[in-house]
Amino acid sequence: MTSIIDDWASKILRGDVRSVSRAISAIENHSTESEDLLKQLFPHTGQAYLTGITGAPGTGKSTLVDRLASYHRKHDERVGVVAVDPTSPYSGGAILGDRIRMQGHASDTGIFIRSMATRGFLGGLSRSTAEVALLLDAAGKKQILIETVGVGQDEIDIVRLADCVLVVMVPGLGDDIQNMKAGLMEIADIFVLNKADREGSERLEEQLHAMLSLVMPRDGWHPPVIRTVATENRGIEELAVTIAKFRQHFESSGKREKKHLEHWKNRLIEMIESRLLESVLGGKAGEARLQELAAAVAARKLDPFSAVSELLSKSGFGAKV
Amino acid sequence: MTSIIDDWASKILRGDVRSVSRAISAIENHSTESEDLLKQLFPHTGQAYLTGITGAPGTGKSTLVDRLASYHRKHDERVGVVAVDPTSPYSGGAILGDRIRMQGHASDTGIFIRSMATRGFLGGLSRSTAEVALLLDAAGKKQILIETVGVGQDEIDIVRLADCVLVVMVPGLGDDIQNMKAGLMEIADIFVLNKADREGSERLEEQLHAMLSLVMPRDGWHPPVIRTVATENRGIEELAVTIAKFRQHFESSGKREKKHLEHWKNRLIEMIESRLLESVLGGKAGEARLQELAAAVAARKLDPFSAVSELLSKSGFGAKV
Repeated sequence: MTSIIDDWASKILRGDVRSVSRAISAIENHSTESEDLLKQLFPHTGQAYLTGITGAPGTGKSTLVDRLASYHRKHDERVGVVAVDPTSPYSGGAILGDRIRMQGHASDTGIFIRSMATRGFLGGLSRSTAEVALLLDAAGKKQILIETVGVGQDEIDIVRLADCVLVVMVPGLGDDIQNMKAGLMEIADIFVLNKADREGSERLEEQLHAMLSLVMPRDGWHPPVIRTVATENRGIEELAVTIAKFRQHFESSGKREKKHLEHWKNRLIEMIESRLLESVLGGKAGEARLQELAAAVAARKLDPFSAVSELLSKSGFGAKV
Repeated sequence: MTSIIDDWASKILRGDVRSVSRAISAIENHSTESEDLLKQLFPHTGQAYLTGITGAPGTGKSTLVDRLASYHRKHDERVGVVAVDPTSPYSGGAILGDRIRMQGHASDTGIFIRSMATRGFLGGLSRSTAEVALLLDAAGKKQILIETVGVGQDEIDIVRLADCVLVVMVPGLGDDIQNMKAGLMEIADIFVLNKADREGSERLEEQLHAMLSLVMPRDGWHPPVIRTVATENRGIEELAVTIAKFRQHFESSGKREKKHLEHWKNRLIEMIESRLLESVLGGKAGEARLQELAAAVAARKLDPFSAVSELLSKSGFGAKV
């Protein structure tokens, strides 16, 4: 077993596409192999820069990510793209999408693109995404782009993984800023106004600046608004340069180490939580039981302590906790 | 034991102040008694309306809460006040504060005021506050006011417990809206512009309306801005009427049951998490160990999986998870 993992890990460290793909599947399936593998790979991580890209459906995130990836490739940096699709329960559609997206980079082994679909309800997606990012980091991707639809808390957690968060908006999408998911505004390090050649882009930019003028800068950084037309490759260089500026601002501010310590503290707590919760509430049966018990508690037919004891004892934790 | 708990519970149901006080201490100390007690009391809960009041230090929240409490007492509703003070590591100062605050209601047994101080780092405060709210609900308080300083995620979680959230602001406090903790804006059902007789209140109100015009109403409710001068009892009636309007809006919208089910589902998950986490990371030693291991992981001296295994095995969960 160890030699198989050893072999697998060394192939990943050399950037072997097939081995990386297999490892992502292992991570998605929460297999024990994936843990053994990531343990071996971990000392080789910490070199990648993670950029999170989020925004409503229809804002052109995929094209934007594609163009950013091409930009990095032109500057000889290896790129990993993780597209998180919370709307797709199975990854069939996602994999088809990957094939189409890969076409533009077909002959380029310096870029790796993978979509992930939603699994379970216990934050499994955010955990898997974090692990895939570690894997791509170990595989030598210096720029990792994590793309997700900004619809729920889970997606907000995912982009929070990133060192730099882009929030993508377009003019004329319903009520513009008003359609924005609460919470997205606060996590943006850079706003991207995509499809900036469309009518209404000036108005949207004004609204954004009005909103931003009311918000205090974090750690001395004022989130800028970058105009792009991703389909025509316009504004991409300025965007990439702005990301680099943000990186420099952040890394020179001396807060980096403290932030990384805080990051890992939270990650360890999350990992413990998710492991314990999964063993208590994991699987369809656990989720159904939770729903049932919550309904009984809401109706005052059962007290919450007894509900919790029942859930814990069913999974053998009862005596311990 | 059972008869002691029975006796204690029936005294609480009759609203006995001393018994309620003792129960709060038991909750704060996470004693097993408190759980037995809350189990017995739980079927008698669900009648109270919880209003959360948050805002920066110096916005006059305590006075506002005091005036709101008096308003409810005048309308013959029994009131419970829980003031959460995350800045005080011990409750000494808080208890002194309670004595001063109680003076105005000294002869009134229909009002109960209690402060709580921060405990631990595992969301213990938000759990305790939720339990104290249940207790006061069982003790027949129809209006429960939960007051906290809006400084961190923990405090935001606390006010989220509430059926209605007030965010209190005052003019001339530094940079006004810019000083607002990110995330507070989104949870406000009603904005209270306190000390509205001060210079700059018109400007602040304009800023608030400008900000609100950019945000989509939730469930058809546009958060209004109510001007008060709590020290002079001005605007309190309008505020209380607006809270009642919000309550009616929410309860007639048909979304109440679904929301309560969702609430209890999340609460059960939180309770399970906090029980499990406490047994893994509880106590000073656990926290110190977490900090140590996170530092080792951040420095790539240890992989996160081994760190998690170590934390779990130390607490006897290793084999199980």
